[in-house]
This record gives sequence, structure tokens and C-alpha cells, in this order.
Amino acid sequence: MCGIIGIHNHPEAATLAYLGLHGLQHRGQESAGMVTVKDSGLQCHHAMGLVADIFSQDVIDRLQANHAIGHVRYSTYGESHIKNCQPFLVNSMLGSMAVAHNGNLVNATEIQKKLEEDGAIFQSTMDTEVIVHLMAKSRKKKFIDRLKESLCQVEGAFSLLFLTKKKMIAVRDPSGFRPLVMGKKKDSWIVASETTALDLIGAKFVREIEPGEIVVFENGDYKSYRLAENLPKRSHCIFEYVYFAKPDSHIFHRDVYEVRKGFGQMLAKESQVDGDIVVPVPDSGVPAAIGYAQESGIPFEMGLVRNHYVGRTFIEPEQSIRHFGVKLKLGAVKNIIEGKRVVLIDDSIVRGTTSKKIVRMLRDAGAKEIHMRISSPPTKWPCFYGIDTPTRSELIAAKKSIKEIRNYIGVDSLKYLSVDSLYWFEKQSQREWFCDACFTGKYPVGSDVISNLI
Amino acid sequence: MCGIIGIHNHPEAATLAYLGLHGLQHRGQESAGMVTVKDSGLQCHHAMGLVADIFSQDVIDRLQANHAIGHVRYSTYGESHIKNCQPFLVNSMLGSMAVAHNGNLVNATEIQKKLEEDGAIFQSTMDTEVIVHLMAKSRKKKFIDRLKESLCQVEGAFSLLFLTKKKMIAVRDPSGFRPLVMGKKKDSWIVASETTALDLIGAKFVREIEPGEIVVFENGDYKSYRLAENLPKRSHCIFEYVYFAKPDSHIFHRDVYEVRKGFGQMLAKESQVDGDIVVPVPDSGVPAAIGYAQESGIPFEMGLVRNHYVGRTFIEPEQSIRHFGVKLKLGAVKNIIEGKRVVLIDDSIVRGTTSKKIVRMLRDAGAKEIHMRISSPPTKWPCFYGIDTPTRSELIAAKKSIKEIRNYIGVDSLKYLSVDSLYWFEKQSQREWFCDACFTGKYPVGSDVISNLI
Amino acid sequence: MCGIIGIHNHPEAATLAYLGLHGLQHRGQESAGMVTVKDSGLQCHHAMGLVADIFSQDVIDRLQANHAIGHVRYSTYGESHIKNCQPFLVNSMLGSMAVAHNGNLVNATEIQKKLEEDGAIFQSTMDTEVIVHLMAKSRKKKFIDRLKESLCQVEGAFSLLFLTKKKMIAVRDPSGFRPLVMGKKKDSWIVASETTALDLIGAKFVREIEPGEIVVFENGDYKSYRLAENLPKRSHCIFEYVYFAKPDSHIFHRDVYEVRKGFGQMLAKESQVDGDIVVPVPDSGVPAAIGYAQESGIPFEMGLVRNHYVGRTFIEPEQSIRHFGVKLKLGAVKNIIEGKRVVLIDDSIVRGTTSKKIVRMLRDAGAKEIHMRISSPPTKWPCFYGIDTPTRSELIAAKKSIKEIRNYIGVDSLKYLSVDSLYWFEKQSQREWFCDACFTGKYPVGSDVISNLI
Amino acid sequence: MCGIIGIHNHPEAATLAYLGLHGLQHRGQESAGMVTVKDSGLQCHHAMGLVADIFSQDVIDRLQANHAIGHVRYSTYGESHIKNCQPFLVNSMLGSMAVAHNGNLVNATEIQKKLEEDGAIFQSTMDTEVIVHLMAKSRKKKFIDRLKESLCQVEGAFSLLFLTKKKMIAVRDPSGFRPLVMGKKKDSWIVASETTALDLIGAKFVREIEPGEIVVFENGDYKSYRLAENLPKRSHCIFEYVYFAKPDSHIFHRDVYEVRKGFGQMLAKESQVDGDIVVPVPDSGVPAAIGYAQESGIPFEMGLVRNHYVGRTFIEPEQSIRHFGVKLKLGAVKNIIEGKRVVLIDDSIVRGTTSKKIVRMLRDAGAKEIHMRISSPPTKWPCFYGIDTPTRSELIAAKKSIKEIRNYIGVDSLKYLSVDSLYWFEKQSQREWFCDACFTGKYPVGSDVISNLI
Repeated sequence: MCGIIGIHNHPEAATLAYLGLHGLQHRGQESAGMVTVKDSGLQCHHAMGLVADIFSQDVIDRLQANHAIGHVRYSTYGESHIKNCQPFLVNSMLGSMAVAHNGNLVNATEIQKKLEEDGAIFQSTMDTEVIVHLMAKSRKKKFIDRLKESLCQVEGAFSLLFLTKKKMIAVRDPSGFRPLVMGKKKDSWIVASETTALDLIGAKFVREIEPGEIVVFENGDYKSYRLAENLPKRSHCIFEYVYFAKPDSHIFHRDVYEVRKGFGQMLAKESQVDGDIVVPVPDSGVPAAIGYAQESGIPFEMGLVRNHYVGRTFIEPEQSIRHFGVKLKLGAVKNIIEGKRVVLIDDSIVRGTTSKKIVRMLRDAGAKEIHMRISSPPTKWPCFYGIDTPTRSELIAAKKSIKEIRNYIGVDSLKYLSVDSLYWFEKQSQREWFCDACFTGKYPVGSDVISNLI
Repeated sequence: MCGIIGIHNHPEAATLAYLGLHGLQHRGQESAGMVTVKDSGLQCHHAMGLVADIFSQDVIDRLQANHAIGHVRYSTYGESHIKNCQPFLVNSMLGSMAVAHNGNLVNATEIQKKLEEDGAIFQSTMDTEVIVHLMAKSRKKKFIDRLKESLCQVEGAFSLLFLTKKKMIAVRDPSGFRPLVMGKKKDSWIVASETTALDLIGAKFVREIEPGEIVVFENGDYKSYRLAENLPKRSHCIFEYVYFAKPDSHIFHRDVYEVRKGFGQMLAKESQVDGDIVVPVPDSGVPAAIGYAQESGIPFEMGLVRNHYVGRTFIEPEQSIRHFGVKLKLGAVKNIIEGKRVVLIDDSIVRGTTSKKIVRMLRDAGAKEIHMRISSPPTKWPCFYGIDTPTRSELIAAKKSIKEIRNYIGVDSLKYLSVDSLYWFEKQSQREWFCDACFTGKYPVGSDVISNLI
Repeated sequence: MCGIIGIHNHPEAATLAYLGLHGLQHRGQESAGMVTVKDSGLQCHHAMGLVADIFSQDVIDRLQANHAIGHVRYSTYGESHIKNCQPFLVNSMLGSMAVAHNGNLVNATEIQKKLEEDGAIFQSTMDTEVIVHLMAKSRKKKFIDRLKESLCQVEGAFSLLFLTKKKMIAVRDPSGFRPLVMGKKKDSWIVASETTALDLIGAKFVREIEPGEIVVFENGDYKSYRLAENLPKRSHCIFEYVYFAKPDSHIFHRDVYEVRKGFGQMLAKESQVDGDIVVPVPDSGVPAAIGYAQESGIPFEMGLVRNHYVGRTFIEPEQSIRHFGVKLKLGAVKNIIEGKRVVLIDDSIVRGTTSKKIVRMLRDAGAKEIHMRISSPPTKWPCFYGIDTPTRSELIAAKKSIKEIRNYIGVDSLKYLSVDSLYWFEKQSQREWFCDACFTGKYPVGSDVISNLI
Repeated sequence: MCGIIGIHNHPEAATLAYLGLHGLQHRGQESAGMVTVKDSGLQCHHAMGLVADIFSQDVIDRLQANHAIGHVRYSTYGESHIKNCQPFLVNSMLGSMAVAHNGNLVNATEIQKKLEEDGAIFQSTMDTEVIVHLMAKSRKKKFIDRLKESLCQVEGAFSLLFLTKKKMIAVRDPSGFRPLVMGKKKDSWIVASETTALDLIGAKFVREIEPGEIVVFENGDYKSYRLAENLPKRSHCIFEYVYFAKPDSHIFHRDVYEVRKGFGQMLAKESQVDGDIVVPVPDSGVPAAIGYAQESGIPFEMGLVRNHYVGRTFIEPEQSIRHFGVKLKLGAVKNIIEGKRVVLIDDSIVRGTTSKKIVRMLRDAGAKEIHMRISSPPTKWPCFYGIDTPTRSELIAAKKSIKEIRNYIGVDSLKYLSVDSLYWFEKQSQREWFCDACFTGKYPVGSDVISNLI
């Protein structure tokens, strides 16, 4: 997954972009980068690691400018390598141009193959590079026409930010898979993956960039274009609500926390159980657990405590410690757990290995019964639109029945949220505005390509 | 504040000490260090920074041994400098010896002056150094006698771990200000500031080291001694329960989470208010907020969301952003807050500046009313036993009335927990086993020295 | 300037390439990189800085393979940026391919413009990128034919190493501007910019790669091809002999030390002076000074001593120290200099600022007279074939007469070597096999493009 | 070995001390440190590594002050550890005080034992710590008297710099083993191990600090004291001339380069040989080789070229390369060496392993004969006064006859300089003013202690 931020027309654009990236750090912790516009051209800095480690005051001072775009990344397509850091900066007929991309193109490999046959060279292993090639190759005269022509050839998810010497351009794919919002801070315009980044830099949320919309910022103002006359139905990623987006963000016209809490309430309605306490897996399970507790009347307790100083690489003892990996992140509150029937709430189960360790930790702490409740349906299908889910064979719900998963994880009962209840916040007719392929296998875009990949 | 860990008789003592320090990281983030026993003598590594950054696999491999003690530090006495990193390693008549200290000595300056007059040189600015000098100067023959003689001269808080070529010694001051627990992992013994470190390394909690107890570990076994025949009354630090200890720890014979949740319940009883939601300041306010919500029946909501990627130094824009400092750490969930009467729960107010920013953030998010409830009494007095509170003049409650604080912070109402309710968990007769000087100004030890310092 | 190394068919190719780069470090200290072939594809590591800092044992272990190419760089064309580090790694119709380049293309800008018009995108600012584009665009079927077709379109200096999954290819431009040598170590083949790298890794020098030769290494063997039927005359860079190559290298069929010492001998013949001692500017002036001393009979003395621990960035005092910059690098031996008529030998004068400082340092040390002798003709013209000389306006000899330079530098006399004497080692007929454009302004290749740039 | 620098009364004392340390880097590359005086007290920074890496502009800015002392270290006594970095900073009755030490105390262990028995604790493993203890323990009232009393108890080599809040004090042991010079730069005074540091910072050499002299700098002026009434004879370290000091330094009243060149001339007189070329082992053998060449009339050639980018740790191939270690540092110039009778000049032979590798490298380059000439007598005895020579058992000349060494190294002939010729520069009567214990075993100070150690 990735996060993007763009600042147009602010004297401290580099500083704001830096802070914005910090606010989007939860969307990607592998690398980060920024490109700004100076009189001398586009300036770039990117590196592997966290935003706070990559950008020093020196670097920000060197990049400082009126316009900037930035990117945080967790690799979904393309290896983990400095060459794949974004924003992606190239020179072509169009002059210097940088692009930052959140999402995933389904037909990138096909297009790359054709472009290579036509003599193109590829320097990264990112799907984003094909977009730039298509634009450079287009015979259209205007930038906007080249952009449209190129983006109409790619299929998949793309929330994009372009930066040229004069303009910043924001684009969101017609399906609107990934969020993309627009804000204002005095005379400057901000575009970001989530509203939490706007809040952090003190910008006011204006509106979402519409699916299929192109917004061109220039000289402190903007114009809006439509990617094509006929746009397909929307397909917002339901998993942004389930897990990905930050709970204090407002995307797809709703507050994430509220939707997530509703999942918990629906889950309580569907899968009530006689429990003594409701315990979330922190932090992602917290809002649903609060919803579950409120709906069920079972007391909410933070029976698992998160460790805030988890380093990224860890030295393990050779004589392994029971459920070591989870212990670094979580601790169990014994008095709370001991002798209790615990309703354990998590947002999803991917491979099942972590859940298994958490359950053992609760058993060691003396839990009498553990009833696991998942605030989304079973994750059975990989995502091809930007979320870094593992292959089908690694998804436990793709291979095992719920009963088998229950046994594997070692809980007394296990229930998932139904797909229907997922849409509690939406009129039934608008359910189809969401992509829930990870739960249903119904891929709204590029399904022919995808069927060959699964 | 500091945290200490000791491993006796485990082939991977360095690895376990490293993990233990990681589990105690919340007790000190300024520096960390470790000393282990090799045939060649005591080996040492310490540096400024976080445990995960200081110890690489290489370093751990080099230090690997059967016995180890470690230390994390946030300076309370002595400057922030590499010379003040612990464990403190010296050579003397007693051979090589390392010591790790959690706590603060009240009469260190007086003793240092006397020792200097007698020709001693001091290389650190830590109070711990006087203990080592006293031991080296003692005319007693046995280590244990030197230790007793020396520790009987110092006043204040000390949970100590010594390491020599043959022994590991754990000591807790007679007042038992700071926690110190003992655990077992197969044939090895573990001593740690809190039980959370035992849990992390898979050790079983055995018991607390008693106030005034000396435990000498040697050859896989231990012997217990008494620091003196007559010991003063206990004075456990109540602030460990209020804020400092990790909620999943068990110290002073109780689970921290449970005590802290009880503070919230008592607070609800004492200072009920007509609110729509109970919102904690995460993470420290969470257990009390849960208690408050359960007692009052007002729904608990995570209306403030914590950012998990806060770097330590931050690049600020010159054009300042409203309540910037807090925004880096917290985001408000608008839909939850908007139009609501918020009962805001925090564990304490020190200077009041952060609370003020949080309140403004909630107002910006649309809170209709904000009723702040603090799960401890007003913090009016500095700590001289190891907690790094500011001087009296910086403590807002030492200078302002509650009404003035309310106005300063900008809330509709403000209530603190009463000192009486603080001891909800204890028979009235045992209240005196705790030190609550930060709330009451009653310093149980060294009050004559302290009266000159305030 | 740059240096390149290639290892074909050695189980420790990464280690050897690393050591080879170390041996070529004098050819570029700005960045270094390496690409190796693993079953999984081409692996790359590069960074800004020195070889010894960039490659740790971990990195080498990760890269370890049977084939490797490496590069050290000091920017001549293209900015100083991580994007411009080499080897340059791309994917295209030809699969994955890496290229390392020493030299400079004269017509890169023209070709890039055409390629961009045709839809190509450029990600670096290096001339090397056009070669890769031309190869990808070629309609030829075989790799070797694409290579020939592409390289026939570029003008300038190029010693190149390509690495694909199966082959390593070495190419030297028809003029043979830059050196490129081939060596053998048991069953493995080594290609390097200079023989000093072969010596370092214990490889035997086999022969130079010929100007206009393509050598394809595959399966432990090699085949030689000719870039074109008709090749222009050779144009070896005389400045490699004057300054650039390491004195213990053997290039262009001669030992560098010997040629350089001969420059000193010719200089003594041409510009004898009544001096007491011959003093070189270390280290580059040493061989010529030895030659001068032997020819003239004036004693050679190391009157200037080099400091071996010069860091790259230096903290300067605000109250400036006389000729500070030079003092960091050199110290004068007073007793040797005092009262003496010093014949000061350097290889060349570029801007003149350093020479001026050295002269003042010698005056301060008490030199009675200073007669500067330069072991090459005045450097009047910039290099377009790979040496990072400044623009004409910065070359002191392009703007000032020798007399004016003498006054500027502050010496009693100043003489340069004549262009004729430069070729002391060569039959007169073969003088034309060298490029001496920096001294004569006669650019052997691309003179039409160059005339527009000067 | 170590180097020390002190700056008294200069507004950029930290910058000058930094530069001075840089100029003394050849005296110690293991660690470096600096202490400066601020109003707030003494400020300290030290770390393992090279001066240029340890001190950033930030650090220098933080330390900037009017007075500063600095130290570079290569461990001679005490382990290689951050605790042993100097200057050594302590608090005692005397207030805050820092000390930097070049040299070695012979009776430190004895004194430390006594001090420990008396209750002292030692935190470093450096002999310097005993001096500070003695001063703290002294019953004298005045600083100068404490200093005298303390230093009269220690035996060995000590060039010392003390820094207190008001004063800088320079002391040189009565034997004057190590050099220590005084310079002036406008209103500020500089003390340094060698004059090369004065030259670098633009200070004028004033005079040497005399053996047994104490110089107290205060308020921009200084007073000189005598350590004791009766001082022993001088014992300047002859090895400073042979190898240690920088050739452009002036110490013990002579230019190092000149003395060293004289060694070469004497060597030529004593051990003439029929050679074709004289080749030094760079850089230490250069001045003697120049002397040898001038005296013998055999041409001087730089047949071995030094690599200027030698990193400190090096990745070695598993399949070892012939004489790998030396190849990283030196390359042979084949044409110069091939077929020649080489007179190879080095300053000394310690273990003989490096010499053996150099000789093989010359043989591989085609040398016909190799006649090794060493510009000092055989190094048979370890140094106890500050030079980090190995133990006797590792000194090849202590175990083998010259003939055996010749065979081990593999040269056609091997000759050392005689002890008599070592003193070519001195009237015979003043030979006794030097310590040549490393060659003769005659230890001028502490011989009773030393006899137990050998």
C-alpha cells in the first residue's frame, strides 16, 4: 500500500509535504520520497525507511519550494529497492515530471511487454513506470490529452499526483478504489490520500477528488477535468474501512472510526456470545470492539496492551520463547483475563499465525473461554488493486473452513462478519459502489487478467 | 526514570537482557546499556538512544554470556551524557563490578562532598556513583557487609542490580519506592523492574524482591539477606500506578491495569457529569476511561487516535500550525466528537500545555462541552525518588487553583481524583505503605534535605 | 572520471569486484556501485561515498555471485545524485541488463532529444542512458548487432561493461580514449580500467581491450568482435599519463610511472634552472620530480609532506588561517626549504589557486627562490571525453599568459613542458595516436558539437 | 601512542583544537576527544574513530569556547573502549578537571593497587587515572603543589595537558620522553605534541616545553614551574625520530625529516651495496631512502606506490590472494622493478610479516636482487614509555638473528643501522639524552618494574 500527498502554492511546501507524509506513514513504512519544484528544476529525495528518519532539517531546507509531492510506500508491485522509491522522476518530451502513485495496475505487465517490444527501457519494477511511458509516447499535443489517452489504457487502481515545473495534477481512477482528498490552507491547495494528513498540517478538508476526475492545479487555482465521458461504476475499497485507513480519517464520505465501530455492532448482532469481557487486538481491533461491547452490553477491556517501542528488526534468542513474535508487540493483563470468557475482536485474519499466538498468550494468562469475532468476512482472495495481501495459498480462509481455522487458532468459537452486514452504513442499492473482492472474489476491473494470476 | 533487568545463569543472558530492556523501554528512552560476565572479565556496551537501535546482533554476540544486567534511562539526576549511561562499571578492591540503579538518592550531594574531601574523584554526575565509592571505602571484609554498610548511609529510592565475576546481587531500598520483581525461566533467575519484562522473555513471576531485601544469586541459586534489622515503613510510589508502570505489569502486589481502571471508577463516583461520551487521552488515560465509562454508564469512545510513528525530533514549519505538537501524536475523530458533551480522561496534568492543545483540538472537532476528569489528585510537588517531574514552579497545580487551571486549559469543568479515592484498592490502614508526596508534599524519606531543595 | 571493473566466472565475483573498485578508487570518489548475476536476476547495490564505506560484508554476502560488474564515479556529465550512480540497471526487450561506463559521449544531448521526441523517457541525467535506449530501440535481432548499431551512433569516449544474465560484454570506443585492460585469474576473466586493479586481486594482465573491440564473455570463455569495419585513428588520453592513472598501472602499452618520470626528465632538459633542491607537490608530482632531479643532478627532497587523514568535508575557523585549504593536506619541512632555491614540480595547473597557496607555504617556510616546473603543457581546453576539467573560463591558462600565471602564483620562474616533449616515449609518427585536446584544443572526435559548447 | 593539543584564550578554541587534532592524527587513530570550558562548566565530546568523523560542525558549535584541550589515541595501556577515550574528565575537591595524556606510566599498576586498598574506584583501564587520584588525595592546598606531589610519585613518560575552569596546565615528564611544544597565535597560546599541529592552525612555534617543566596558562598569560628541584637526565624517545613523528615536525630541537634523512645517509655509509635503484617503503621509509640515495649515488625511485583510500576494515576473499594485506596499501611499479637490484629502505622491522609480503610483491614484479636496509637498529625490546610495540616474543629481532630474519623475509641481504650511527646528529656526549631502550634494552626509568614485565 502507499500514501500520497501534494502541496500547491505554499512557501513551505516541503515542510508541509513532510508532515503530510508523516500523517500517512501508516499507509507504507518501507520507503518515502519527495519531489519539489525549484527554479533550477525538480528536486528529489527518497530513501528506504521511515519519514522521520529520511528527512532531516538539512534535506527539507534543500528541497524547500512552493510546490511538492510526496509518497510513502509498502511494496505491492515491484521489489523493495531504492529504484522503486517514489515519486518517480523522469525527463521526456514533456520536460521534467514526477509522479506519485497509490494503487495497482492490473494490466501493467501486458503494457510493459508491448512498450518493450517498441524499444522502451524500464528502470524500476513498478507498474507506475508504464503510465509515464504511455504519456511520453502519446502523439497528443496537450499534457491533459496525453494524460487521458494514457490512463484510459491502464486498468486498475490509481490515485496519482503529478508534478511538473508549472503544475500539480491529481487523478483518481474511475472506480475510485483508493481514497484521494482535497484540502485548502489559506492560498494553498493540498491533495492527500486521507484527511488525517490534512488535519495534521492544519488544512481544511474541501472534498474528495471524484472517481475519474483530473484536477490541474496551477498558479494557486485549479481546473477539473473528466478522465473519460463514460465512467464505470465506482468500486471503493471496503478494506480501507476494515483495516487500512486511519480511524480519524474521513474517506468515501464517511468517518472511518464510525464505520469500523458499526462493523463491531453488526458483529454483535450476528454473533452474540455469552462472554465476560470484550477485548480488542490493539490497535486495529479497537473501534469494532467498542461497537461490539456497546451493542452486546459486555464490558470492553484493554486486556491486551500494545508495546510502543517495537523496532523493525529483532534479535531473537536461539532457544525460542513461546509466541515470541507477538510478545514483542503485545502484553496480556492477567487479572483482567484470568478466569474470564473473552470475546476477542480483530479486524481480519490473514495467515492466522498471529491470531494463534495471541490466543495462546490469552490462554497462558488464564482465559477460561476465547470467542474470536472478526469484524469482516473471511479474507479469501488476494487484492490486485493495491493492498499487499499474500497469494491465495497463504490466505488461511482460502484453504480452510471456518471450523478448521477455529481449530488451528485454538479458540472456543470463531465467527466472521457477513458480507451483508459489511454494508450496514449504506443503502442496499449502493453496495455495488464498493469493491469487496478480497471477501467475494468478484473483481470489478481487469477480471480477465486477474483470473490468469490467481 | 529508569528500568533494570538482570539475568543469572542462562546461556543466552545477553539476548534475554536485551529483550527485557526492550520490555522496559517505557521506563527510559534516553540511553540503554548492558554488562555481561565473560571469562575475560566484565563486558560493557551502552549508548544514547533506544534499545532496538543500540544493540545489534553483532553487539549481542560479542556480549553473550551466562550472566547479564541491563539498564534503560531517562535522566532524573545527572546530565544526559554517555558518561551517565548505566550499568556503571568500575574496578576497586572488590574487583570489577557493575551496577544498575533505578531510583534517586536524596543525600547523594552531601555524601559526594564528603567523599571528595577525602580524596575521591567522580567521573559521572550520577548519584549511583556514591554507592560504589562507599562500598570501595568500607573497611568491612565481606562484600555483603560492605554493601549493607554503604546502603545504610544513603537515603532515598534504590532498586539496584550488581554484577561481579561470580555473583548477581539485587537490592531494594527499605521503603520499596520502586518496584523490583524476581522471575524464573528453567534454571535461570531473572530480576526486573516490572513483570512485563518477565512475560516478554517467557519467565515465570516468582515474587517481588522485598523492601530492604538483598538477594545474592550465585551458581544458579540465591540467598536472601536483610539490609538492616530495623526497616522503616514501606513507601511504594503511587505514581507507578497512576502513570509510570506498564498496564500489563503486576507490581506492589496488584495488576496495574486494574488499579488504574479503579481510579476511573472512583473518579466517576466522585465527579459524575452529564456527558455523551467518555474519551481517553491515549494511551495512558485508557484504563481509567474504561473504568469511568463502566461506572458512569456513559459510552466509551476512542475519540482521539494515536499516531504510532512519532519520531523524536521533528521539523516544524515556520508558519506555525495550530496545536502542532499534539497533532503529531493525536488525531480527533470528528463524527464522534462533533456536537457531543465529552468527558475527557487523562491520568495527570503536569504543566498543562499539552492538555490545553488537546482541548483545542477537540473544540475544533466540534465538541459541544468538554469535561476533563483526571484520574489522580493535582500534582503539586516534585519527586525526589526517581520520577523526572519538573520543579515546583513548572507544576501548574502548584501555582494555580483548580478553577484557574480549568480556565487555562479551556474546559467546561475540571475535576481531579481525591487522595482518599486513590487508595480504593487498599485497606485504610495500609494507605501509609505508599508514597504520595507528589500529591501531598509528605516526603517519607530525607525530608530535611528535600525541604532545602524545594 | 570513472573506473570500471568486471569479473566473469569466479565464485567470489562480488568480493573481487569490490576489491577491484577499491583499487580504482582514485578514478572516482563520489559514488560506487555493483551489479551481480544471481539465479533470481541481476542484483544491484550503489550509494554515494567511498567503496570501503558503501560495501559491508553483509552487502557483499547478499550480492555474492559468479559474475559482477562495478563502477566508481566522479561526475563529469549528469548531476551528483543517487539516480546517477552506476552500474545502470534496466529491463527491456533484451531482458535485464546492467551497464558501467567510463568516458563521456559528445553527442548525448542530441540523441536524447531525438529519443524523447520518439517517446522515450529518461530517468537519470547520465549520457550512458542514451546507449541503453538505442540498444532497446534497435530493430536488429542479435544482442551484438544491436550493440554495434547503437555504439556507431554515439560519438566520444566509452569504455563499457555490460552484464546480462548470461554474458559480460566489454567494449572500448574506436578512439580508445580511456584505458581498458583484460586479466585472468585461474578460470575467471577480469576487465578493469587499469592494471592496478588486476594486481590487487591477484589477476594476471593478459592484454588491453583494443580500441573498437567488443569482447563477449560467456561460460568462462570469450569471443572478440570489431565494432565496425573502418575505425578512426586512436586517440588515447595523454592526461591519463600526466595525472589520472595510478603510477603503478600499465596502460596504453606503457608503465605510467615511467612515462611520468620521463616528463620530468624532458622538463629538466627544456627548463633547467639553478636550484638547490627539487621538491614535488605530493603525490601526483613525485615521479616527474624524480625524473627532473635525476636529469638535472639537483637533489630530490620531500620538502612537502602529505597528511594521510584528510577528511572530505572540513570545519573551517571563521577567522581564516593563511592558505588553510592546502595546510590540511600538506606540511612544509622547514629545515629543508629554508634558504633554498626550490624547484617545485607539479603535474599541471588547473585554476592556479592551490599552486598559489603551496607557494606561499614554501615562502613562509623560508624558501629563497621558487621555480615552478609543470610536467605538462598549459591546460587551456576543457575535456569532453570524460575528465572533469572545469569550463574554459575557469582554466587559468586559457585566460592568462604564462607570465601572468607566474605573477598570480607568486613564483620566481614558471615553465611548462612543451607538447613535443610530452611524446618523448613515442615515435614521432605515433604522436597522433593520442588526444591532447586539453593542451592543444584539437578535439579528435565530435569537434563540431564541441565547438558549440566551448 | 597518543597526541595532545591545548588552546588557551582563543574565541574559536574548539575549532583550532579540532584542526590541531587532525594534524596529530598520525599519533593515534583509535579514538579522539575534546574538552572545552564553558560558563556552565567543562564540556566533553569523544568517540572511537577518526577526528574528521567524530567532530561535526554541530559538535564543534556546541563545544565552542575560549579554552580547549584535545586528544587522539592509539591504545598502549588500557583497552580499546569508549571509557578509555581522553581527555579524561572528573570532579573532585579540585572542582571539574580534564586531563589529556601522551605517554605511559611504568608504575601505574602498583599505585592503582595502593589506591584501591585505600578505597579508590577506577572507571577506566588507563594509567592516566592514577594521576587524577593522586591529585585528589593530596593534602596540599594549592593546585600546583598537588600536581607536583602527584607527579613525583609516578614514573614513566607523560606529556600532559590539564584543563580547569580557569587554567590550562601543560606538563612534561623530567625525562622528556615525548615531545611537547608551545606556540602562539596572536593573543592565544597553543600546546601540542608536535609542531606540525602549530603549522596547521597558523600558530608560531615558540619553544619546547622543557622536561620537568609545568606551564600554567591563565588569563592569556603563563607562568613556568619546575616539577622538582633535582631532575634526572633527559631521555628523549629516539623512535619519534625513527618513525613516529611527522617528517615536517620540529621536535627535540631538530627537524624530523632531516634527522631521518641522515639515518639513510649513515646507513649508506655503513652498509653500501651494489644496487640499481633505491626504493622506500612508503611513506615512512621515504626520507631515509632519499638520504641513502644521495649518499650512495644510486637513483631513488618510488617503485612502491601507496594507495590513498585504504579503509580500516576490509572484506577479504575466502580464496586468499597472495600477500593480500600489503596489496591493499601498496602497488609495485613493474617496469621500475623488473630486472633490477633493489635497495629497499624501511624505517624498522617489527614482526617481519609485512616486510615479507612486500619482498614477495617485489619479487613478483621481477626484482633481480633485493637488499633490505633498515634505517634503525634491530627493534629488540618493547617500549614502556608510550609506543605500542608488541611484547618481546612478537618482536622478530628479539628472537631471530639478522641472518634468520633475512631468510624469513626472503631478501638477498639485510642490514640495520648501528646504534652509534643513530646519533649522527648529536655530539657523542649528548647521546645519553635519548632513550633507545627499544634497541638496547637500557630502560632509563622504572627499570626495576620493567624487569618484572619483560
